[in-house]
Amino acid sequence: MLQLETREQMHSISRRWREEGVQTAFVPTMGNLHDGHLALVRAARRVADRVIASIYVNPTQFGAGEDYQTYPRTLDADRKALEQAGCDLLFIPDHATVYPAGLDDAVRVLAAPALSNTLEGERRPGHFDGVVTVVARLFNLVSPDYAVFGEKDYQQLLIIRRLVDDLGYDIRIIPVPTVREASGLAMSSRNNYLAEAQREAAGALSRMLLEVVGLVEEAGVAVDFAAIEREASSGLQSLGLQVDYVAIRSADKLELPGENDQKLRVLVAARSGKTRLIDNMEIIRVGI
Amino acid sequence: MLQLETREQMHSISRRWREEGVQTAFVPTMGNLHDGHLALVRAARRVADRVIASIYVNPTQFGAGEDYQTYPRTLDADRKALEQAGCDLLFIPDHATVYPAGLDDAVRVLAAPALSNTLEGERRPGHFDGVVTVVARLFNLVSPDYAVFGEKDYQQLLIIRRLVDDLGYDIRIIPVPTVREASGLAMSSRNNYLAEAQREAAGALSRMLLEVVGLVEEAGVAVDFAAIEREASSGLQSLGLQVDYVAIRSADKLELPGENDQKLRVLVAARSGKTRLIDNMEIIRVGI
Repeated sequence: MLQLETREQMHSISRRWREEGVQTAFVPTMGNLHDGHLALVRAARRVADRVIASIYVNPTQFGAGEDYQTYPRTLDADRKALEQAGCDLLFIPDHATVYPAGLDDAVRVLAAPALSNTLEGERRPGHFDGVVTVVARLFNLVSPDYAVFGEKDYQQLLIIRRLVDDLGYDIRIIPVPTVREASGLAMSSRNNYLAEAQREAAGALSRMLLEVVGLVEEAGVAVDFAAIEREASSGLQSLGLQVDYVAIRSADKLELPGENDQKLRVLVAARSGKTRLIDNMEIIRVGI
Repeated sequence: MLQLETREQMHSISRRWREEGVQTAFVPTMGNLHDGHLALVRAARRVADRVIASIYVNPTQFGAGEDYQTYPRTLDADRKALEQAGCDLLFIPDHATVYPAGLDDAVRVLAAPALSNTLEGERRPGHFDGVVTVVARLFNLVSPDYAVFGEKDYQQLLIIRRLVDDLGYDIRIIPVPTVREASGLAMSSRNNYLAEAQREAAGALSRMLLEVVGLVEEAGVAVDFAAIEREASSGLQSLGLQVDYVAIRSADKLELPGENDQKLRVLVAARSGKTRLIDNMEIIRVGI
């Protein structure tokens, strides 16, 4: 596995591969890799000739009081895991490579307003602007044919799709289903913050999501979305989780669901102690 | 000369050329082409195998009350002029191609704050954000190796350089000196708005710039920048021009000049009747 650090190196190999007709798939990460990330790498391998992963903990997507300083950094283990999963190139830019003018005078990208002002965007102001600002930079540095993102961060996935469509990038986005622990807990680098007992309680999130999926699918046209959300939310609270939201939304735009929408998504954000967890599942309403 | 209108066509030919190792230089324009634009096309020919020009009047860089609706559209003449100047591909996207999600819910790019908050940015709020928002889109649609911009819009040139450096684009920016009419008036599509008498008075702008260049270069270390600016400004006012600014700034960052800065730029913006004109010249202080 090749390892590159500078913009010149990255541009140069990317040019060479494009001239050779080599198709590339890009997996941007913040490191501290788990099986969820490795599923992204495997998906990348399936669509392209070469897999490029990046590790960069992006300061502009963390809010004040969030865990930027303490975000787990495990480069040696990450490198081994990527190599084993079949990654061809690891790009590890430093801050000066990603933000050559620093943070205060940086060119910024603002995410599509409607998609980014709700749910996570409402609780984490500026988060998605930080995400698209770094993803646009990485796309320009790497110039991939494909980019792979997990459905675990579902709102982010939609926002990245909009970034690509709206800014006209010639990049295809490949979504990858969430990888879960045996308990159902969606894999996340932040799971490391959970104590054993909290980890078990956190499994309740995915069981709740499954229940909501079942309730909505069974209810048919007469569904009361708000009642199902309230019920699910208080169920989680009673297990000691602090719920930010349980929300049933349209799958494409995250709008309040219409009676006749067939493709929905249920999304949850909750804290267990100081650890904030998010998860989501697809809802398909057959015959609506 | 090839003419393309859709994103799919543009992406596809751009991919093909990259795979064939063909180098491209891109000249984005808003049409209504004059000799200044054709100098950009000729510069593009010198650096690359193929020249791509675009014509798109970008709504997001016009402010309220500016001339978006009346901006001159002269497509047939533009097409002929480009072909004669040696352009290989003309890209004429419509609004849905450049802003597929419309304007209100669009992903936006914000220009580097320090460079874009002064001079033109101060007088035309949001103008440079509109410029980088459309230029980023065009860069992603066209994926050129080079992009060519005129020094006539000097602040824009610096802001585009920062866009490329900061967002990590693998694109080299080629600056082209301003083309002038016999009177010294910098060529601009907006010169068409000028009546004959105004056109003559407008020639005073470039004579004033030349004078300022001479005064600064002669003054040496003892130069009083503010006095020279004031003098130049009142000279233009006395000719019936309404002056927005005459400003001597550092050539790279447009900051107030330091006593020992060697490379400066003098920039002017003034109105003749309803027509707003801008111009600028280089100042090299030898032996400072």
